[in-house]
Amino acid sequence: MSASVEAGNPMASSTSHFRFALERSWSAQRHLCVGLDCDYDRLPAAARRHRTVAEALLAFNTDIVEATAGYVCAYKPNIAFYEACGPEGIEALVGTVAFIKDKVPEAGVILDGKRGDIGNSNERYASAAFDVIKADALTVTPYIGAESLSPFLDRADRTIFVLVKTSNPGAHEFQDLPVGPAGTPLYQVVAGNVATLWNKHGNCGVVAGATDVEALRRVREIVGDLPILVPGVGAQGGDLGAAVQAGRHGGGGLLINSSREIIYASDGSDYAKAAGLAAADLSRRIAGHFDEGR
Amino acid sequence: MSASVEAGNPMASSTSHFRFALERSWSAQRHLCVGLDCDYDRLPAAARRHRTVAEALLAFNTDIVEATAGYVCAYKPNIAFYEACGPEGIEALVGTVAFIKDKVPEAGVILDGKRGDIGNSNERYASAAFDVIKADALTVTPYIGAESLSPFLDRADRTIFVLVKTSNPGAHEFQDLPVGPAGTPLYQVVAGNVATLWNKHGNCGVVAGATDVEALRRVREIVGDLPILVPGVGAQGGDLGAAVQAGRHGGGGLLINSSREIIYASDGSDYAKAAGLAAADLSRRIAGHFDEGR
Repeated sequence: MSASVEAGNPMASSTSHFRFALERSWSAQRHLCVGLDCDYDRLPAAARRHRTVAEALLAFNTDIVEATAGYVCAYKPNIAFYEACGPEGIEALVGTVAFIKDKVPEAGVILDGKRGDIGNSNERYASAAFDVIKADALTVTPYIGAESLSPFLDRADRTIFVLVKTSNPGAHEFQDLPVGPAGTPLYQVVAGNVATLWNKHGNCGVVAGATDVEALRRVREIVGDLPILVPGVGAQGGDLGAAVQAGRHGGGGLLINSSREIIYASDGSDYAKAAGLAAADLSRRIAGHFDEGR
Repeated sequence: MSASVEAGNPMASSTSHFRFALERSWSAQRHLCVGLDCDYDRLPAAARRHRTVAEALLAFNTDIVEATAGYVCAYKPNIAFYEACGPEGIEALVGTVAFIKDKVPEAGVILDGKRGDIGNSNERYASAAFDVIKADALTVTPYIGAESLSPFLDRADRTIFVLVKTSNPGAHEFQDLPVGPAGTPLYQVVAGNVATLWNKHGNCGVVAGATDVEALRRVREIVGDLPILVPGVGAQGGDLGAAVQAGRHGGGGLLINSSREIIYASDGSDYAKAAGLAAADLSRRIAGHFDEGR
């Protein structure tokens, strides 16, 4: 259960463009991940006008990316929002990732899909995420076990973020269940397995929400230097300063996600400018919290 | 942990077209679910010739559905295979479901997506599965908890199959972990929660593989009359007769899934005829095992 020396093996991680880029971002005090969770019905009228669904989603995303590029270490489109628009949504998602790769190559793209099926299907999910959509990283759910997730874990050039402690109010239902003679909470067993057994290629990360700071602190103790993707600040109520102190690894280690507070900062025609200002502000506050603890 | 009288509440289930159709299928000894897991690269040349990717996938599926319709209670497309083909794959999936609804209305369509995210995203996944793709049922993964899965569970007119015990060799990593003072395996805790707490609308089912017959028997004890979707016969090695005896509920209760053995029964131009023969044979064998135990 303790963090292993294999966790975040530097030789292996150096093969991953995204892990390398992350270290550079953290050195430049960029710890922000912008969630591109674009609900077509919530797009500002200015982004929708005279456009198809695919065009509107893509135009909105490219505007948001251009406005926020200087403040982020990663973008995280949640595929649910694109699937809800059918084939046009997937078209917009593919276009969005291509735009980020072209214009902001230093930012990683994490496809947020919470995937996890048996081996045969996971090969197709891996192909969709990494070969069709061309994301650098993917979120996966652990219930099915590492054996079946190998089509993801074996992609040494991509980063796999495993759900450990989610930010929703009902996360405790299974994640806090006491396991074994010591009554170790299930999420800690998952974190331990990811850090030691799953991370053979040095390409694993974990997801742990800002809404449970003590759990985030425990996850950091368990996973060593693995990157932690942290949802739950902002709308979900997590305390930013406490999350940074609990989850940081030296001057980095965290990808602090924010979605709605940034992409919907304004519903007027100034949505891109407002998103840029919101990203700049949040990025500065995160960096401030990192400075505090030095 | 014991099966509750609320499990499979007959008043609530009667609101679900699929549950009603399932009872009729079981009465007619149709317990087979055909997995439409179409890998474009594995389609017979006869299905691909002179066709776009979307046309080829749709043509293959419609041929398979027409040939197997008399033997099934449900079709189960796994969305991973369609996502791997990009927007064209999703187009083919939407077309396939529309074809089944039109031509074989008595068969349910289970979208196999193993979905499970936080609430906001699950609303979009539910919209994709039920409003865009128009499936009758969806598979979900439990790790995130019932609170976040409510956008699925609250769709009283759709059936939600929750992963309980999967058919992959590494399923034990988390699913068999001993929980609490009694050391109850995690999958049994999940099954108990689904049957008692999650099933308010009488629209839940569970997934339990044929590869672990004792676990399947225990799941049936826990979930009462809930439908169990059973993968793992055929290529994965589960014993059909043992699975039927362990998982049945009277003359029904099971959806026995088979994918590759049916859809790839032949790679020649006779693929549809071969799929029909394979489905007829498997359907007859399942019915025989049901008869044995009477």
